[in-house]
Amino acid sequence: MRGRFITFEGPEGGGKSTHVQALSEWLKSQGKTVVVTREPGGTRLAELIRGLVRDEMDDPPVTRCEVLLFLAARAQVVSQVIRPALARGDWVVCDRFSDSTFAYQGYGRGIDVQLLKNFNDFVTEGLMPDMTILLDVPPEVSRERLAARQAATSAAGDRIETAGEMFHRRLREGFFELAHAEPKRFVVIDAAQPIERVSAAVQTAVRRLLA
Amino acid sequence: MRGRFITFEGPEGGGKSTHVQALSEWLKSQGKTVVVTREPGGTRLAELIRGLVRDEMDDPPVTRCEVLLFLAARAQVVSQVIRPALARGDWVVCDRFSDSTFAYQGYGRGIDVQLLKNFNDFVTEGLMPDMTILLDVPPEVSRERLAARQAATSAAGDRIETAGEMFHRRLREGFFELAHAEPKRFVVIDAAQPIERVSAAVQTAVRRLLA
Repeated sequence: MRGRFITFEGPEGGGKSTHVQALSEWLKSQGKTVVVTREPGGTRLAELIRGLVRDEMDDPPVTRCEVLLFLAARAQVVSQVIRPALARGDWVVCDRFSDSTFAYQGYGRGIDVQLLKNFNDFVTEGLMPDMTILLDVPPEVSRERLAARQAATSAAGDRIETAGEMFHRRLREGFFELAHAEPKRFVVIDAAQPIERVSAAVQTAVRRLLA
Repeated sequence: MRGRFITFEGPEGGGKSTHVQALSEWLKSQGKTVVVTREPGGTRLAELIRGLVRDEMDDPPVTRCEVLLFLAARAQVVSQVIRPALARGDWVVCDRFSDSTFAYQGYGRGIDVQLLKNFNDFVTEGLMPDMTILLDVPPEVSRERLAARQAATSAAGDRIETAGEMFHRRLREGFFELAHAEPKRFVVIDAAQPIERVSAAVQTAVRRLLA
């Protein structure tokens, strides 16, 4: 039997990587074999592409280059990791996927969303998540959490994290619109809540797929 | 006045890099300011992308990833090098451009050519060469010249150079079809001729743009 494909989406600071790990552990406790991956990334080549997109460099990608790099990385991880895992019957939990392209490059950077969907269909050959968990946080919370993370690690924010206020508002609206258009696939969770309550909400949603 | 944009295309072993340099020198002798570039490449980021596409690695790009990497590199060099140069009134001579995508990934690898043209229009924002010089060589000559180059440099052929015989036949047919569809833009030159005769043919063609 084909496995299940769950993606986490949302603005920075919503705790995606924490909840990807927590869900993965919980699914294992339910007897599932789980493959955890992330975008961009998840294969050696895709992680190299991630480095090109996210690092500050003296030749940062223009918007059209950036979106194609994200799509290139997706083509690789879909083909080499996600599809093979689903074919084996494993569960796949992915930190970001197609909806991030629509939200960041579409709503955020202003590229036509329908055009991005056409490109994305080519890249994924129509693969869609069975469930997408949108961890929503308002821009203020996102900003506070990022500042705390940067203070703790002495790291500067990367190019996307430090994009302007208006960008982050458009991004959040974009995620809402995507969720509104596909209510069966999306589960929207208020990720400004304490972490235990977010985890509980994620598990409640995913139990639906286990049944 | 906007500069002129000339691209060289064709299978491996047709002498593109030699003739790109020779044309550039000749244009300078005619008083032009010339920018020479290549694809994939031409900016720091695009050269890094070139490395991902062309190096043998343990995670080589799948076809859909490969084409998106080529397009990503193109978006960057068009935006950062080619358009600014043309806007200054410079002449730009580029070793490979959009037609290589149509020939290699379309005719060669079997991706729908119209779909590639749609993607490419997004990438280039409609920028087309003023003239495209197709240096045609039959597969036998291409193979002999590559073998000689590899013997001289002790280099193994890269992933694309070593693709099979049928691939190279489809590729050549693809270039012919592209040239046939746009006879005003394309100049087809028999590059199996001695180098001086190829150079003379290139100059004859380009004089048209100088007038």
